[in-house]
Amino acid sequence: MSTQLVNETEAGERAKKAPVRVAVAGATGFAGQELIRLLARHPYAVITVATGSQATSTPRRLPALARIWDGTVVPLDIAAIDADVVFLALPEAASADIAPALLASGKRVVDLSGAFRLRDATARTKWYPATAALPDGVAYGLTEFEFDAIRNARLLSNPGCYPTASLLGLLPLQRAGLLQPGADIVIDAKSGISGAGKAATDRTHFSENHGSVAAYNPFGHRHTPEMEQSLGRPVTFVPHLVPLDRGILASLYTRLVPGTTAAAVGAAFERAYADAPFVRLTGDHLPEIKHVAHTNFCDIGWKVDEAGGRVFVVSVIDNLVKGAAGQAIQNFNVMCGFDQRAGLL
Amino acid sequence: MSTQLVNETEAGERAKKAPVRVAVAGATGFAGQELIRLLARHPYAVITVATGSQATSTPRRLPALARIWDGTVVPLDIAAIDADVVFLALPEAASADIAPALLASGKRVVDLSGAFRLRDATARTKWYPATAALPDGVAYGLTEFEFDAIRNARLLSNPGCYPTASLLGLLPLQRAGLLQPGADIVIDAKSGISGAGKAATDRTHFSENHGSVAAYNPFGHRHTPEMEQSLGRPVTFVPHLVPLDRGILASLYTRLVPGTTAAAVGAAFERAYADAPFVRLTGDHLPEIKHVAHTNFCDIGWKVDEAGGRVFVVSVIDNLVKGAAGQAIQNFNVMCGFDQRAGLL
Amino acid sequence: MSTQLVNETEAGERAKKAPVRVAVAGATGFAGQELIRLLARHPYAVITVATGSQATSTPRRLPALARIWDGTVVPLDIAAIDADVVFLALPEAASADIAPALLASGKRVVDLSGAFRLRDATARTKWYPATAALPDGVAYGLTEFEFDAIRNARLLSNPGCYPTASLLGLLPLQRAGLLQPGADIVIDAKSGISGAGKAATDRTHFSENHGSVAAYNPFGHRHTPEMEQSLGRPVTFVPHLVPLDRGILASLYTRLVPGTTAAAVGAAFERAYADAPFVRLTGDHLPEIKHVAHTNFCDIGWKVDEAGGRVFVVSVIDNLVKGAAGQAIQNFNVMCGFDQRAGLL
Amino acid sequence: MSTQLVNETEAGERAKKAPVRVAVAGATGFAGQELIRLLARHPYAVITVATGSQATSTPRRLPALARIWDGTVVPLDIAAIDADVVFLALPEAASADIAPALLASGKRVVDLSGAFRLRDATARTKWYPATAALPDGVAYGLTEFEFDAIRNARLLSNPGCYPTASLLGLLPLQRAGLLQPGADIVIDAKSGISGAGKAATDRTHFSENHGSVAAYNPFGHRHTPEMEQSLGRPVTFVPHLVPLDRGILASLYTRLVPGTTAAAVGAAFERAYADAPFVRLTGDHLPEIKHVAHTNFCDIGWKVDEAGGRVFVVSVIDNLVKGAAGQAIQNFNVMCGFDQRAGLL
Repeated sequence: MSTQLVNETEAGERAKKAPVRVAVAGATGFAGQELIRLLARHPYAVITVATGSQATSTPRRLPALARIWDGTVVPLDIAAIDADVVFLALPEAASADIAPALLASGKRVVDLSGAFRLRDATARTKWYPATAALPDGVAYGLTEFEFDAIRNARLLSNPGCYPTASLLGLLPLQRAGLLQPGADIVIDAKSGISGAGKAATDRTHFSENHGSVAAYNPFGHRHTPEMEQSLGRPVTFVPHLVPLDRGILASLYTRLVPGTTAAAVGAAFERAYADAPFVRLTGDHLPEIKHVAHTNFCDIGWKVDEAGGRVFVVSVIDNLVKGAAGQAIQNFNVMCGFDQRAGLL
Repeated sequence: MSTQLVNETEAGERAKKAPVRVAVAGATGFAGQELIRLLARHPYAVITVATGSQATSTPRRLPALARIWDGTVVPLDIAAIDADVVFLALPEAASADIAPALLASGKRVVDLSGAFRLRDATARTKWYPATAALPDGVAYGLTEFEFDAIRNARLLSNPGCYPTASLLGLLPLQRAGLLQPGADIVIDAKSGISGAGKAATDRTHFSENHGSVAAYNPFGHRHTPEMEQSLGRPVTFVPHLVPLDRGILASLYTRLVPGTTAAAVGAAFERAYADAPFVRLTGDHLPEIKHVAHTNFCDIGWKVDEAGGRVFVVSVIDNLVKGAAGQAIQNFNVMCGFDQRAGLL
Repeated sequence: MSTQLVNETEAGERAKKAPVRVAVAGATGFAGQELIRLLARHPYAVITVATGSQATSTPRRLPALARIWDGTVVPLDIAAIDADVVFLALPEAASADIAPALLASGKRVVDLSGAFRLRDATARTKWYPATAALPDGVAYGLTEFEFDAIRNARLLSNPGCYPTASLLGLLPLQRAGLLQPGADIVIDAKSGISGAGKAATDRTHFSENHGSVAAYNPFGHRHTPEMEQSLGRPVTFVPHLVPLDRGILASLYTRLVPGTTAAAVGAAFERAYADAPFVRLTGDHLPEIKHVAHTNFCDIGWKVDEAGGRVFVVSVIDNLVKGAAGQAIQNFNVMCGFDQRAGLL
Repeated sequence: MSTQLVNETEAGERAKKAPVRVAVAGATGFAGQELIRLLARHPYAVITVATGSQATSTPRRLPALARIWDGTVVPLDIAAIDADVVFLALPEAASADIAPALLASGKRVVDLSGAFRLRDATARTKWYPATAALPDGVAYGLTEFEFDAIRNARLLSNPGCYPTASLLGLLPLQRAGLLQPGADIVIDAKSGISGAGKAATDRTHFSENHGSVAAYNPFGHRHTPEMEQSLGRPVTFVPHLVPLDRGILASLYTRLVPGTTAAAVGAAFERAYADAPFVRLTGDHLPEIKHVAHTNFCDIGWKVDEAGGRVFVVSVIDNLVKGAAGQAIQNFNVMCGFDQRAGLL
């Protein structure tokens, strides 16, 4: 019985009578469709409107979601969005453009783009030039580490898929003071092709990826500053495309403060995630993408080389769920005072 | 909100207070794990025991289901099964052996094997020699066509994965009298590798299947008599393995009674599935496996050649859900008087 | 030692001193690159020029072929093509447009498009409207059945990928008079995604195909008239896309003349391919795509239901080799008097 | 024309008249079959015998190689091996056991196992305990760096697949003195499933790998000491399985001596491989597995962060060709005085 899995909060009780009215802008992309799929069965939310990514999109149905959500995706028109909370699954320039107006009209916003992730103005101008400024009330939505900020956020900036997997694997050790200061942190991430987006390009052609693996953007991916912001130190990050549809496996390599034991590493993880319903620790039985596909779980395993002072961490997520739509809803739940797990199990 | 998707029946209301106690025998196979995954969040059921497939299995956890179901799979011991309904996800000889005793003790049984699917004693002896006889109260669980029998079943014999996809695509036309008597019916089915089972064999090795397709058992697969029983006429059936994990696409070829229009074919499908929550008709926009993976839907599309008197039907399911565990739960819901969709959306 | 595999013909001996000068038009597509790859190591040919598919293409290298062929692909300019034999791997309208001029200038042409495959003017006008007329000296290049015509061809029209696999599986039985006249012939073909071409479209996106299978163009694919032309009778043909890169498996279903034995079927295949170096018969051990990928082989297996009068044939090829570039070179070898196998082993 | 691709050496001229007699022990595994496939068309070699991996294997054909090599694989019997050179594609304990006797009888041996790769007795005893001692005349077959030793080798120890990809990407920089002493070297390698061997296990089941990625053996893989031996310094190596059949992509991360320019890195690679026919340098256009599958090429690309002193190198090979059978034949060619490329293009 699922009832044991979600605690009915006071806010949840209220929402059963008067569900939160939510809108999704950008409902036809991969993350947008996943949002619709999840929100359609959310116990406390009702979708009032779903839009395409442009004012000129033609109205359309989502056949893959027939019987799950049978509404029509309409052209993007901010003025016509009637909702308490608006999810933006748009390119970052569109989010940067639209979010301020939505906030001004009193709506809360959950933005899945990178537009509002970087606090440092210089970095933000470099990587997200369309973002004029960070609005008040913005929170970075790495749920497991930003719970209190998220609860009160007006604008929730949902983390990137690579930072989600990588930070969940590194922050417990960093915050416990176990990572050797100054040591290199190498993040080698493997992502399914849905991470490259829905546009048909040479890069997303089946024949380019079947039977292949490709590294891209070494030292130059814009998720790097996002990770460095949370960790407070530099990282070496290289993403790779692997021939599967959904999922990320992040391989994390660095050094520990001399004398750190495997037991201390395990304890740091256990402590960090004692109350986290979506993080599953697998210890030295390393996790695989398969186990988290189509779920909001992040599975984390690790191996410590005590003699050599090295640690290797593996963190896996579904890039469209915990790396995008699922975490967005998890954050929405926190913002509304619901059980984090509502609609996600 | 999901509440709109399931109608609370009277039986459902009762079960919210006193959930139906269910057991799963054979919980470590592909279908068994899918059963556990689905039953763990079923609103009206509670898993009282999950067993391996043999009395000698060692107790074990199911790490892939951590946080979804954290119980222990124990060795198979019929005497120790305390449940109202027992799901059997066992090899057919084991089911044939065990089911009678469970029935005798007053339990209702949902059997996912082929042991009790064939009514004709000669055919059954040939294909399922371990089955001594069909018990009273057995129903064939093709939910959309056997609703009334299922409601009262003591022993529910869940259909094979290939028959589920094939029959749902053919029965509406057959029952409407649109299929030309005597014409060949060719069923060319493509299945993901999970259909070959969890045992590690040359046939299930990754390198044998990646980049390949293989036909097997032409004219000789035991799902053939199962389809012929429901259709009341012979079929030519050849299954194929395709390099994906989950899903079946059945391509169905036959001839129509002369003069049959495309409109008549469409009407027959619409009529057959007017009240079927898990069948989605896509008309001449042919369905694909991707759209039903990880769901209990069967999507059906078709193309009629009016001039030539031919019809081509495509039917797709997830072999582990609608083709096994999902349909089993759909049948369980009918047996218990719940909304068919409970626990399946 | 490979020497045992190719018989040095008189023409081959001559060509070792003065190799045949070949050109490839359309060298950047899947089939074009495969042509370059194979011709670059052909013992009797030398590539004099390789062009893109348009006069406006920019000159470019083929990095995937570095060290195999390091030439430059230049814009298409018929006047500048200096060669004895020109391979056209172009869209059919371009082939229809260009081939006559090349023939007029005395060159021999091997065309991989469908422009010149259909002899019947009505059918050709329907399916290949850009083709004004069939030039003199055109031969249909199904090597195993058209050897004599190919030897003297000025314009070699290379078969489609689906017809190659399907006809090689059916013609031996049809020509031996074993197929029941009037019976339906169902051809259910499964193709890798490279068959959908190199253009990036929604249809070729990785995420649309991974974990999926899709039927397309039922009753309406233009390879149907091509098969019907060679067989002299109608067929029901439906192609499917399966999640792999290269290869076709054709499943062929029909009825035999009453009384036909399995032995007679086997004998017909053996007789038809006694001298065919690229057809491998596997009997009732059904062949798989994996065994022919990256080769010019066509593997054929079958199963006869003597009592029921049915036959099921499986035929597999690599769609880019035996279904395109490889068969084109096999035909080129025949045209030039070389051993069929030259450059293909 | 292929003639331009292989220089006829004096030894090659002789071998055309009297080909080198080669044997393959372990011909049914993945690497063994690839050896047979390549040797069957080698211009200067003739296969005299192919054996299984045990004295008790039953004689069998290799259907996948029909028409390429139609011999019979016989049980392993050293005394019956009549050949000049013996390729061993056996488990390392079998190689360790057999090789000395073959050498004693005057044969030259090419061993594809790890039995004779480690020179340090302590390391060898730990990782390959079945190897009693290194025979005289053993050479480590990383062709591009050990040419002179290989030429005179009696026992050629073919490198592991991971060391091949990794060392070819690192040694040019290490030998040029560009790698910062003491800096960590992280090797994150992604391998196709054929690397896990032909045995059917849970690990090689299709359903375990499709849609998944898995790291394994962190800090504990026996290819680590092999890499450290060639580099003369420690490395952090973690292999991963990715859902494809053939190929390895090694991602190599380390630091450069301060002040090292991108130009210096490029020059070091160019210099190291000026005469290497099977290494293709792609600069900052990073190579992908797809481009080397089914070839003996190693493609290497890189990116230098001059300001940060970091270098990232990507090296890709086909694990069964350059990582096993292909490199073995390349070494065989060097041992015999043939062009390195003979039989490999």
